[in-house]
Amino acid sequence: MSKVIDGKAVAAAVLEECRSEVAEMRSNGITPGLAVVLVGSDPASQVYVGSKARTCEDLGIYSRKIELPEETTQEELIKVVEELNADSAIHGILVQSPPPKHIDEEAVIRTIDPRKDVDGFHPENVAKLALEDSSGFVPCTPAGCMRLLKEADVETKGANAVVIGRSMIVGKPMALLLMAKGSDATVTVAHSRSRDLPGICRQADIVIAAVGRPEMVTADWVKDGAVVIDVGINRVDDATKKRGYRLTGDVAYEEVAAKCAAITPVPGGVGPMTIAMLMKNTLKAAKQLSS
Amino acid sequence: MSKVIDGKAVAAAVLEECRSEVAEMRSNGITPGLAVVLVGSDPASQVYVGSKARTCEDLGIYSRKIELPEETTQEELIKVVEELNADSAIHGILVQSPPPKHIDEEAVIRTIDPRKDVDGFHPENVAKLALEDSSGFVPCTPAGCMRLLKEADVETKGANAVVIGRSMIVGKPMALLLMAKGSDATVTVAHSRSRDLPGICRQADIVIAAVGRPEMVTADWVKDGAVVIDVGINRVDDATKKRGYRLTGDVAYEEVAAKCAAITPVPGGVGPMTIAMLMKNTLKAAKQLSS
Repeated sequence: MSKVIDGKAVAAAVLEECRSEVAEMRSNGITPGLAVVLVGSDPASQVYVGSKARTCEDLGIYSRKIELPEETTQEELIKVVEELNADSAIHGILVQSPPPKHIDEEAVIRTIDPRKDVDGFHPENVAKLALEDSSGFVPCTPAGCMRLLKEADVETKGANAVVIGRSMIVGKPMALLLMAKGSDATVTVAHSRSRDLPGICRQADIVIAAVGRPEMVTADWVKDGAVVIDVGINRVDDATKKRGYRLTGDVAYEEVAAKCAAITPVPGGVGPMTIAMLMKNTLKAAKQLSS
Repeated sequence: MSKVIDGKAVAAAVLEECRSEVAEMRSNGITPGLAVVLVGSDPASQVYVGSKARTCEDLGIYSRKIELPEETTQEELIKVVEELNADSAIHGILVQSPPPKHIDEEAVIRTIDPRKDVDGFHPENVAKLALEDSSGFVPCTPAGCMRLLKEADVETKGANAVVIGRSMIVGKPMALLLMAKGSDATVTVAHSRSRDLPGICRQADIVIAAVGRPEMVTADWVKDGAVVIDVGINRVDDATKKRGYRLTGDVAYEEVAAKCAAITPVPGGVGPMTIAMLMKNTLKAAKQLSS
């Protein structure tokens, strides 16, 4: 039987750590603050932003939600970010992705003070990750995956890790974290253009699936006893569901779970970790800015 | 028979490209300028610095060699860098590595104007490499390796590339270049803590050895028909040589050459490319700063 890595439980534990830290910081006169900027009215983004704000409030983190109309210009958005950069009540700034098409997302990210860049997308934090400088912010999803591996007692040292996907949000930072000193995995980054993806994946002790294709990783891709972290969250039509779809990861869960040593479910695996690591990053920012 | 990838010849061709570009730039009133700062009197560093200056002069690039005494303080060195940042005759700045032990090399690199950072070590250029932003500077050695692969008509798309070594000078940037869109290799970064390094290496269509261990990669590590790029330059005691040592790469050249499709020799492989790519980067800096 395979061991399910319970992301909900680990995320809850991380949030309890955060709650204690917030209490201690507040007793020292520092209230950590997170600003989330949402441009437009994408329903999924509204759900995410609402969930981040509620989590903050639950932990005692000051939360500011800034909702801007769809037609906000790039200059207006950058002005909002600059005001947040200068606002001492705000330690973390996040611009919800994706912004409307007329906004240059990378340009906006570059205007965030890197010390408040709790998403870890600013070039300065990207560089710190590559340079193994721990003062930077690690993007929340790969940071969450690393925490899950740790909590599941997975040995990364000398392990063969295969990361499927090469995005700057997950694949590349994940690879950099796994190959860094201390983690010491042998890391392969595979992607849609890789030859014999199943064969590459079969050699992995640790599989990180972050490619966004529902149930692509099937049992014949995974070696007995591997650990599988499923970052994908895909909607698949399902007439038996009231809402008409179900959520599924990049891994064919049932068949892979039957042969691997440990696996994250979807939902309830990596998903809950992302927001928990965002809270961690916000506290780190508040501590660094206050010290 | 294996095909020797002649780094000297490719580097000479790159330098001829540079010579034409310099001539054109000068006819437009722009003389590219490179400043090389050397602290202390390490004999190897003096040789490198001299060679860089001579190559500049040969191509028509303005070269400034700044030699500072061993006891130069960090602040004095940073002041020199800042003056070069402000100097419009200088487009590229390079602080020869390694500086004396009392100097914080990373702090010095961070003070170089990223637009003049022709070594590609400034965090802003590290981030651009990870983010696949081609306006940045790629470190010269991995850039040279990519050029050698191109000149040898090696298909990287879908190929399995194994990079041995995870330094920020060679291993990591090499991996990022090989996995980037356009190159599209499946990249494995292996290192001294990897399990079964020979087995990992045997799966590679392309091997990049950048680990600094003389002749570590032997014939049984390399699959028939692989392409082998040897970044190592190691001194090995050799009583039959007048100087008492010989130079060797990380690859056991003779036995590997007998079975691979293509290989770079040491010396005469990657080595000459590094300085050629430095010249390329200097011209790129001059163009970007003048436009």
